Amino acid sequence: MQNAPLHALPTPFEPHRLVVEPLIRAALLEDIGHGNDITTDAIVAPGRIASAQLVARAPGVTAGVNASLLAFQLLGGPFEARVFAPDGSHVEAGSTIADLRVNARTLLTGERTALNLLGRLSGIATATRRLVDLVAGTGAHVVCTRKTTPGLRVLEKYAVRCGGGSNHRFGLDDAVLIKDNHLALAGSIHDAVAAVRTQIGHMVKVEIEVDTLEQLEEALREPIDAVLLDNMSPEQLAQAVAMVDGRVLTEASGGIRPETILAVANSGVNLISVGWLTHGAPSLDIGLDIEP
Amino acid sequence: MQNAPLHALPTPFEPHRLVVEPLIRAALLEDIGHGNDITTDAIVAPGRIASAQLVARAPGVTAGVNASLLAFQLLGGPFEARVFAPDGSHVEAGSTIADLRVNARTLLTGERTALNLLGRLSGIATATRRLVDLVAGTGAHVVCTRKTTPGLRVLEKYAVRCGGGSNHRFGLDDAVLIKDNHLALAGSIHDAVAAVRTQIGHMVKVEIEVDTLEQLEEALREPIDAVLLDNMSPEQLAQAVAMVDGRVLTEASGGIRPETILAVANSGVNLISVGWLTHGAPSLDIGLDIEP
Amino acid sequence: MQNAPLHALPTPFEPHRLVVEPLIRAALLEDIGHGNDITTDAIVAPGRIASAQLVARAPGVTAGVNASLLAFQLLGGPFEARVFAPDGSHVEAGSTIADLRVNARTLLTGERTALNLLGRLSGIATATRRLVDLVAGTGAHVVCTRKTTPGLRVLEKYAVRCGGGSNHRFGLDDAVLIKDNHLALAGSIHDAVAAVRTQIGHMVKVEIEVDTLEQLEEALREPIDAVLLDNMSPEQLAQAVAMVDGRVLTEASGGIRPETILAVANSGVNLISVGWLTHGAPSLDIGLDIEP
Amino acid sequence: MQNAPLHALPTPFEPHRLVVEPLIRAALLEDIGHGNDITTDAIVAPGRIASAQLVARAPGVTAGVNASLLAFQLLGGPFEARVFAPDGSHVEAGSTIADLRVNARTLLTGERTALNLLGRLSGIATATRRLVDLVAGTGAHVVCTRKTTPGLRVLEKYAVRCGGGSNHRFGLDDAVLIKDNHLALAGSIHDAVAAVRTQIGHMVKVEIEVDTLEQLEEALREPIDAVLLDNMSPEQLAQAVAMVDGRVLTEASGGIRPETILAVANSGVNLISVGWLTHGAPSLDIGLDIEP
Amino acid sequence: MQNAPLHALPTPFEPHRLVVEPLIRAALLEDIGHGNDITTDAIVAPGRIASAQLVARAPGVTAGVNASLLAFQLLGGPFEARVFAPDGSHVEAGSTIADLRVNARTLLTGERTALNLLGRLSGIATATRRLVDLVAGTGAHVVCTRKTTPGLRVLEKYAVRCGGGSNHRFGLDDAVLIKDNHLALAGSIHDAVAAVRTQIGHMVKVEIEVDTLEQLEEALREPIDAVLLDNMSPEQLAQAVAMVDGRVLTEASGGIRPETILAVANSGVNLISVGWLTHGAPSLDIGLDIEP
Amino acid sequence: MQNAPLHALPTPFEPHRLVVEPLIRAALLEDIGHGNDITTDAIVAPGRIASAQLVARAPGVTAGVNASLLAFQLLGGPFEARVFAPDGSHVEAGSTIADLRVNARTLLTGERTALNLLGRLSGIATATRRLVDLVAGTGAHVVCTRKTTPGLRVLEKYAVRCGGGSNHRFGLDDAVLIKDNHLALAGSIHDAVAAVRTQIGHMVKVEIEVDTLEQLEEALREPIDAVLLDNMSPEQLAQAVAMVDGRVLTEASGGIRPETILAVANSGVNLISVGWLTHGAPSLDIGLDIEP
Repeated sequence: MQNAPLHALPTPFEPHRLVVEPLIRAALLEDIGHGNDITTDAIVAPGRIASAQLVARAPGVTAGVNASLLAFQLLGGPFEARVFAPDGSHVEAGSTIADLRVNARTLLTGERTALNLLGRLSGIATATRRLVDLVAGTGAHVVCTRKTTPGLRVLEKYAVRCGGGSNHRFGLDDAVLIKDNHLALAGSIHDAVAAVRTQIGHMVKVEIEVDTLEQLEEALREPIDAVLLDNMSPEQLAQAVAMVDGRVLTEASGGIRPETILAVANSGVNLISVGWLTHGAPSLDIGLDIEP
Repeated sequence: MQNAPLHALPTPFEPHRLVVEPLIRAALLEDIGHGNDITTDAIVAPGRIASAQLVARAPGVTAGVNASLLAFQLLGGPFEARVFAPDGSHVEAGSTIADLRVNARTLLTGERTALNLLGRLSGIATATRRLVDLVAGTGAHVVCTRKTTPGLRVLEKYAVRCGGGSNHRFGLDDAVLIKDNHLALAGSIHDAVAAVRTQIGHMVKVEIEVDTLEQLEEALREPIDAVLLDNMSPEQLAQAVAMVDGRVLTEASGGIRPETILAVANSGVNLISVGWLTHGAPSLDIGLDIEP
Repeated sequence: MQNAPLHALPTPFEPHRLVVEPLIRAALLEDIGHGNDITTDAIVAPGRIASAQLVARAPGVTAGVNASLLAFQLLGGPFEARVFAPDGSHVEAGSTIADLRVNARTLLTGERTALNLLGRLSGIATATRRLVDLVAGTGAHVVCTRKTTPGLRVLEKYAVRCGGGSNHRFGLDDAVLIKDNHLALAGSIHDAVAAVRTQIGHMVKVEIEVDTLEQLEEALREPIDAVLLDNMSPEQLAQAVAMVDGRVLTEASGGIRPETILAVANSGVNLISVGWLTHGAPSLDIGLDIEP
Repeated sequence: MQNAPLHALPTPFEPHRLVVEPLIRAALLEDIGHGNDITTDAIVAPGRIASAQLVARAPGVTAGVNASLLAFQLLGGPFEARVFAPDGSHVEAGSTIADLRVNARTLLTGERTALNLLGRLSGIATATRRLVDLVAGTGAHVVCTRKTTPGLRVLEKYAVRCGGGSNHRFGLDDAVLIKDNHLALAGSIHDAVAAVRTQIGHMVKVEIEVDTLEQLEEALREPIDAVLLDNMSPEQLAQAVAMVDGRVLTEASGGIRPETILAVANSGVNLISVGWLTHGAPSLDIGLDIEP
Repeated sequence: MQNAPLHALPTPFEPHRLVVEPLIRAALLEDIGHGNDITTDAIVAPGRIASAQLVARAPGVTAGVNASLLAFQLLGGPFEARVFAPDGSHVEAGSTIADLRVNARTLLTGERTALNLLGRLSGIATATRRLVDLVAGTGAHVVCTRKTTPGLRVLEKYAVRCGGGSNHRFGLDDAVLIKDNHLALAGSIHDAVAAVRTQIGHMVKVEIEVDTLEQLEEALREPIDAVLLDNMSPEQLAQAVAMVDGRVLTEASGGIRPETILAVANSGVNLISVGWLTHGAPSLDIGLDIEP
Repeated sequence: MQNAPLHALPTPFEPHRLVVEPLIRAALLEDIGHGNDITTDAIVAPGRIASAQLVARAPGVTAGVNASLLAFQLLGGPFEARVFAPDGSHVEAGSTIADLRVNARTLLTGERTALNLLGRLSGIATATRRLVDLVAGTGAHVVCTRKTTPGLRVLEKYAVRCGGGSNHRFGLDDAVLIKDNHLALAGSIHDAVAAVRTQIGHMVKVEIEVDTLEQLEEALREPIDAVLLDNMSPEQLAQAVAMVDGRVLTEASGGIRPETILAVANSGVNLISVGWLTHGAPSLDIGLDIEP
């Protein structure tokens, strides 16, 4: 199929609980360590129930609300929660994201794990939305990279979707991306694509990274699905887009930040991939307010 | 990119040892159970070294030789091996696949685990090669499915590649395949494809299963990469191929066996997927001969 | 105790859920991969409920029905199921094995895992029953081997029981089987048995493999519980049975198939072990029909 | 086979490293916790090498020497060791069990894990040897039970073998032991044995627990391999042995301690099982002396 | 803060279920092995419900009651239990610790795992209480060590708390204890403390082991929180306490047993650490009585 | 001991490889997914060796160099590396951190995992050093919090040490920190501290969070080791420090950033804890240059 139209992402897939639960469990065990929250267990009676609210302290976009609430569910006891700002929602400073009514020990023991996860994922969603809004109307899609936190890729890629971005390949196994280091070892673009084409199945796409318009010309002679235009200026990108002329998807990449993304998008590229979303965006400040 | 040419698979990717080793380790522990090979440890002195050969007892194609030898390496002691029939090789009854020189306890304790794996994977490779040979010259590719043994998908898909086949998607996550049950719940083909298109990244391909030529016509109006023509007669397949006219890849599927595959291939389809490769092919008979 | 009477297996032990659940969970995660069934999650609304039936497409014997339904339970959501053909039941093509009413996403995401397992285990049970029926009236028991799929031994041995067969030892740790390769390293049958007898506890049985009647004579002088008569003709087996004269259990082994098993059974052996049950029997064809 | 002669255990099977290594690794991680031995890493330079000796502080029998040394191997760095008192050796207070030369941090970080394991297992071996010596000449074998420390059964059963004892069944899966609670739910001894006989394979032995001579008489009518004579006086045991008259193995059980074991053995029973070996024997005092 | 008053432990922290459940699950799987309790599953009907009582056979202090009941919960089926002697309770021979009403198979399959754990932990609690009672009124606290069973430290340290004892550090990571072997490698006490002080965070305490009063004098010049007075006589301990004069906490250690602890306590030390609690105390005899 | 002097951290503890290796292995498997780096394995010959350099693209402080190199070691093949900027080193844009010579496939497959980890940890170290330098000369220590990435706490706390900061408690189990939410549930500061004191061992420190000088006054009457002065202005902090007068350690906390930290430090507090180090600091830009 030739260049299916790309769409915005209205309702992002949430990773399956079977995948997420082990991550939350490991995070709780990392914090509980040798067996207990010794402060909470000494001070708070076992059967006590408490109400609390997850509250945004700064404006942003939520991601990971259900995953974070899972921390409290896994710790045990009665669990009631209402979510007011499900993943992908815009919140203001002071907005209640969810309220919950759980065992008081569970609340205090799970608080940091829940907030660490929710803040980090919402930070990514917030950064993504900011970029998506900046390029609104240009037709360009904001895309993530594999520059994610070790162990959290599934959730961080999901957070990008919550912010309105789109996902690049998940790992080294599910799509081909021929990069400069591969070309350095392969010889030519033609040889690299040919080698790949003989090995992959029919459901796998191939993208190739090019640094120059000469390389692009070479790449366009090969059976590929997309080109990654690395570290090009907006002018070069525009030239590249013209050369490609809709035959393959075009992706701009390389140190793109909020300040520069609109110029990149105006070049007409289909996709803009931004590592900063997952390696540089700060956590969204979210707190847990316990009702007195 | 539109319908890159499909190639035969000359040198299949071997799954990374990091992925395979836990499977072999678990298989050994399943056999060792409560701690020991009580027969071997009683009879064979600890430091003894033995030589042995992995020998095919029937003709076929090898797959999993390195993975099987890993069983002996993980059990410990000195390890020397020469592989005469690396994965993908044709062997006759009596062919030596590999010889090895290892601790004698290791040899006897690891024998069954190694042979269970090697026989099963080589059985799949052998069955695949048989089908590949049957359709030689037609341009059709033999493709596997997700009908694999729970826990062994990575290795079984690799065995298909060793036999000259090609892999369909690996799991539910790396490509879209809209099947009849999805359509039953989605309403129309158009709605199903549209729903998918808004959600997936640009490196993900979309295939749709159709049972009739009417459905095919409908599917071809959508932005898809491939069609799975399910349970069609060779005549229907030929009509379908004509209708598609190279716009998307065509895949035949549905109870295809050695007896029927050539007729299917002659219809002109690009791909023929065969679940039998992984759920029906018998193990290749391979033995371990210890040198006296 | 001397040669307790052997019985047919009326109600096979089902492996404990504590043992089975991790296998099903791993199989689901193998299919879900990077977090989602991207086809289903895009097309099917989260809260939707669907009804479906597990239906045999060919005649056979069921095994693993509960284990397969566990796939849907682990994926979550409401779960209702009625089992019409519990493990060990004979089914015809078209027989409903179970019906279920679960979340529609769960149904589609779990379908392949459930069917892969159910088809494989029922294939083993079906093959076993076929052999059991072939030797009916001879007094011989059909027995499995350790030639199982790596990782699935517990379930495959259970499937043999579902088909009316009986289990040989589970692993290298729970019974002694002195094979030709052990004898090659041990010197004599006497030395091998003596070595073993000094090491094992009083609850462990000892079997020895013999290839000739001379070896059998030698073996019968030792304190053993059973002899494995390897690759003997029906005539040799009959001679061996006569020589043993009920002193120990007799087991025939070596490439036995449906065509040859009756002749073997008529020799009067107590047990016939058949590796083909677990390494060669094809899956039983079972489908999932979703109700419109 | 009928009552094979029981032997003393000259060279106990050592559990396979594949089984033991995960236990040692988990024990080290339990001690290292949040990442470091903060005392050692602050005080001892990284590259320093140290020599040390594992020294018995009390007389006893060793078990687990290799398993304990594995702690130092897993922690890394150069490793040299000489074992002077391999598993099953008698040591006096002051005897050097092994000397080793390893990285000094490794030595201090691994010390407690190694000693905890070695002391515990040697304590079991020492207690076993004591009982074995007490019944020397009577023909009775000292046997362990399933009253082991959760997680350490494989090693503790091995320690019993190191002390000259013999193992009862390993778990609930590898042999049948019909106990009083089973009989309470089964109705009669006959029904219980019959139910079991129809389910188990031919390599599984059956033992039944009886509390009275009446029960014993009933049990001896059934096809069993052994009887467990529970909480009987030496006189009752002698009567029971006479009744059994060599037809099945006889095992005495029930609160047997060093003070009482000889009287029990003199009754003529084949086996004496003692839970105290694994739930009551104190650790052997062993220290690590670092050379100045 | 300077020497906060030490208190008795009224309600010990129970380790979080998230930490305990994997241990119980592993213990059950160790016993179930290749998939089944073959005795119970053959004899007891699947749906049967049974009532039973956990009963002390000897006087002592309970620990691990909830953890042990978890064995039955994890095995599945209906579960009702009433606890009469929660952790830390004194029981007499014949006291009912808990009664329960569960699936009869679950009861018999889980019995040994539950009792092994409960007996061991209650044995530790009983030994601890005995020492605590012996030093009552002296102001000394009974403290555990790291001489615990590999894999069970969290539970064994909890059992010490159930017996009224107090915990020393959990592992090598959460507090500094400079021992003789460290000093042998560090040079001087001053250098060792200085090295540690530059590395640790402000929430970590420092204790140093001294063997002589000269060393103690040297240690008291350094910024430490506690001194471990190793293998000193009561007279030496009294001198040491006088020298310390309340500036740091004092801990006596070294082969202390019930017979010697009071003399040690009368020296005025704040803490007495006793490895015997966890490496030498026998299990408390507890049985499971099934109601007819 | 009362307020031991706090020191700068000259050579940070590196977390033990036993703890780090599973994290790196999981990160690699997350990227390798269904078994292969399909791009690299198609293009690069198996046995090829390549040289490369880890190069800083921006100035900063390194952390995690060895941990990152472990990615290449775990992937297998020959491994040689020289580290020029070990953890804690200052680097400029263009500085070579390490060079390595490894299998070319290993290099390309491990690149992203290594860089993701190294960039993130070095980003934390860089941010920490920046704050440490800003408060140089004031006597205040920069301290981390529990606001770390789920799964990476051990490494992130280590990165803080590499940057010259100091660690607060690791988890909920190794020190007591009574926070506002605890007080809300406990009643009074006195009750909270009393409850804690009766439960914890003698090696555990206690800190309490106060929001006002009134609370501080109340807290100083209790046996605590440190006070956390939350969200106070520099003036309030100075008052608090004067009130404390060296009796306990003082820690400032609450939204502290580079712009505000010097004013906080000038108040005279002992410690300044900064969540931003681990939840807000961007990754350090580090690349892998393959030699042609």
